Amino acid sequence: VTETIGDIGELALIERLKPFCAVDAIGDDAALMSVRSGHQLVVTTDVLVEGVHFSDRTTPPYSVGWRSAAANLSDLAAMGAEPMGITVGLGLPKQTPWSWVEGLYTGLSDCLCAHDAAIYGGDLCRASQLVVSITALGEVAPQRLIRRDAAAEGMTVVVTGAHGGSRAGLAVLLQEIEGDINYAQDWVRAHQMPVPRFDAIAQLRSLIGTSPMPAIAGMDSSDGLANALLQLCHSSGVGIEVFQNAIPLPEGLSNTVGVETAFDWALYGGEDFELVLCLPDDLANRLVGTGIVSAIGQTTSVHSGEVHLIRLNNTREPITHKSFTHKSFQHF
Amino acid sequence: VTETIGDIGELALIERLKPFCAVDAIGDDAALMSVRSGHQLVVTTDVLVEGVHFSDRTTPPYSVGWRSAAANLSDLAAMGAEPMGITVGLGLPKQTPWSWVEGLYTGLSDCLCAHDAAIYGGDLCRASQLVVSITALGEVAPQRLIRRDAAAEGMTVVVTGAHGGSRAGLAVLLQEIEGDINYAQDWVRAHQMPVPRFDAIAQLRSLIGTSPMPAIAGMDSSDGLANALLQLCHSSGVGIEVFQNAIPLPEGLSNTVGVETAFDWALYGGEDFELVLCLPDDLANRLVGTGIVSAIGQTTSVHSGEVHLIRLNNTREPITHKSFTHKSFQHF
Repeated sequence: VTETIGDIGELALIERLKPFCAVDAIGDDAALMSVRSGHQLVVTTDVLVEGVHFSDRTTPPYSVGWRSAAANLSDLAAMGAEPMGITVGLGLPKQTPWSWVEGLYTGLSDCLCAHDAAIYGGDLCRASQLVVSITALGEVAPQRLIRRDAAAEGMTVVVTGAHGGSRAGLAVLLQEIEGDINYAQDWVRAHQMPVPRFDAIAQLRSLIGTSPMPAIAGMDSSDGLANALLQLCHSSGVGIEVFQNAIPLPEGLSNTVGVETAFDWALYGGEDFELVLCLPDDLANRLVGTGIVSAIGQTTSVHSGEVHLIRLNNTREPITHKSFTHKSFQHF
Repeated sequence: VTETIGDIGELALIERLKPFCAVDAIGDDAALMSVRSGHQLVVTTDVLVEGVHFSDRTTPPYSVGWRSAAANLSDLAAMGAEPMGITVGLGLPKQTPWSWVEGLYTGLSDCLCAHDAAIYGGDLCRASQLVVSITALGEVAPQRLIRRDAAAEGMTVVVTGAHGGSRAGLAVLLQEIEGDINYAQDWVRAHQMPVPRFDAIAQLRSLIGTSPMPAIAGMDSSDGLANALLQLCHSSGVGIEVFQNAIPLPEGLSNTVGVETAFDWALYGGEDFELVLCLPDDLANRLVGTGIVSAIGQTTSVHSGEVHLIRLNNTREPITHKSFTHKSFQHF
């Protein structure tokens, strides 16, 4: 017999969740946190709904927790902020197994713990559908802030990691494709346990050292690489030209699904949670030299249009908003 | 024809909500905020679900917004914190009218605005049920923090305002009772537009002036006066004795529903969002003198049990946890 939330009751459930939290602040209590002197608070909220953002078929509860935390931490990393913690608002159907909630909190905790962050309480309530609303808090010194609107003409565009792996992992889980078993495991891992790229920010900081930080624009690729490029262009008033052959794909993907599908997933698949940064050329070169990012293109004048992809056959093809609206609108 | 969220689409909806926000931070963006030097950040999260916390029958969207903001601000007031702002996580069925969402945001904004706070973005997603998850942020100087666990034996227990009004307002809206029309309007207002009691905290501060703040315990009565008293006892390890005839009731309520029901609603009705404070006697007397609070009892040794009510006929009756579990457990 599966023990459900309805069997446990709200107060007992709150007691069970307290060990996952940095402070006893589930339910009515509020949590106290400190923001370091000279730092600003960064706040970001994400709502994840069962059937829209996750389903039991592809995402076990541990992964729902890990990905929820990772998605929020990735937003902080993309701003150059350091993570402090999250609060968790939960809507739970009463037939939800306790093991599901325990898995969710374990996944949240493990991802947060890996980045010195913690759960600072939250609230829970009966609902007809599983809803997870996470608010993440971070801190950033204003002079280290990375913004979407800071790109200028003539910068190098770099990305961390490979793109398309999360979509490929989803395809494996949905049994849409069968890849080489070793690669398939990597893709599933990219989908279920993405890693926010604080490591790339740390590397960038280390290269800059005590010099003043130059203007750096950036965001994460949670809604797809194409979307990130378009948003950077839109916010900064520049164009971007990227080279298809410079965009890193997950190992083995092209061989499994073909080059065109692999690039489609890299551009539009989403949920890779990598960083897309626009940097001055010299700094970009040094960062590429560390191996933590790949240069994929450059910023151009806005007059040449927004984002263009230079295809393998050298044709220049616009990436339009239309191309990603299917992704952004899928939530309604 | 009613325009729905499904008609509008996610991106256009985000655009419509931006004017309600202090910064453009609905959707993917994160918001930047400043915490004053020498202050700590206070974070609290509340999840409200349609059919559990509100329904169209009793709560128009403006009131859902106002009450959601008020509930969170009240938690901040109860800690002696000053409000900064909130983030809003929304789960929305696609048939939700735009007018509902607009009403919600107008109610949120109006309540926040009255307390110099603002909306700092959020996120929204399609869901099968209306879910509103609010995270409120405030700041407090550590030496001004009011805690639940700071009560000691021999303090005076005071409350702001009257208790039972919100439950009475709900009864009017559900047509359970018909009161004198003037009183009924006040009760409905108490239910739909509660006011977080920052005014009482300001008064307390003004009385303390530049003296060091003595230990003060407190919380709000969002889950009922009885629950607040029990939680203060439990957290602080004291008992509390309250006098039934000292507990202020909403004007006209006893005459409408009888003394016993009126007191039952005052103790267990919940959602009055008043403050319950335990103060040293002299400070309590001065605060009572300003008219902003009423003394209802005193803290006692924990050995005399937790909360006791001295009835009108002078009998001493324990208020047990059992008495309020029906309220706390109703969410599951």
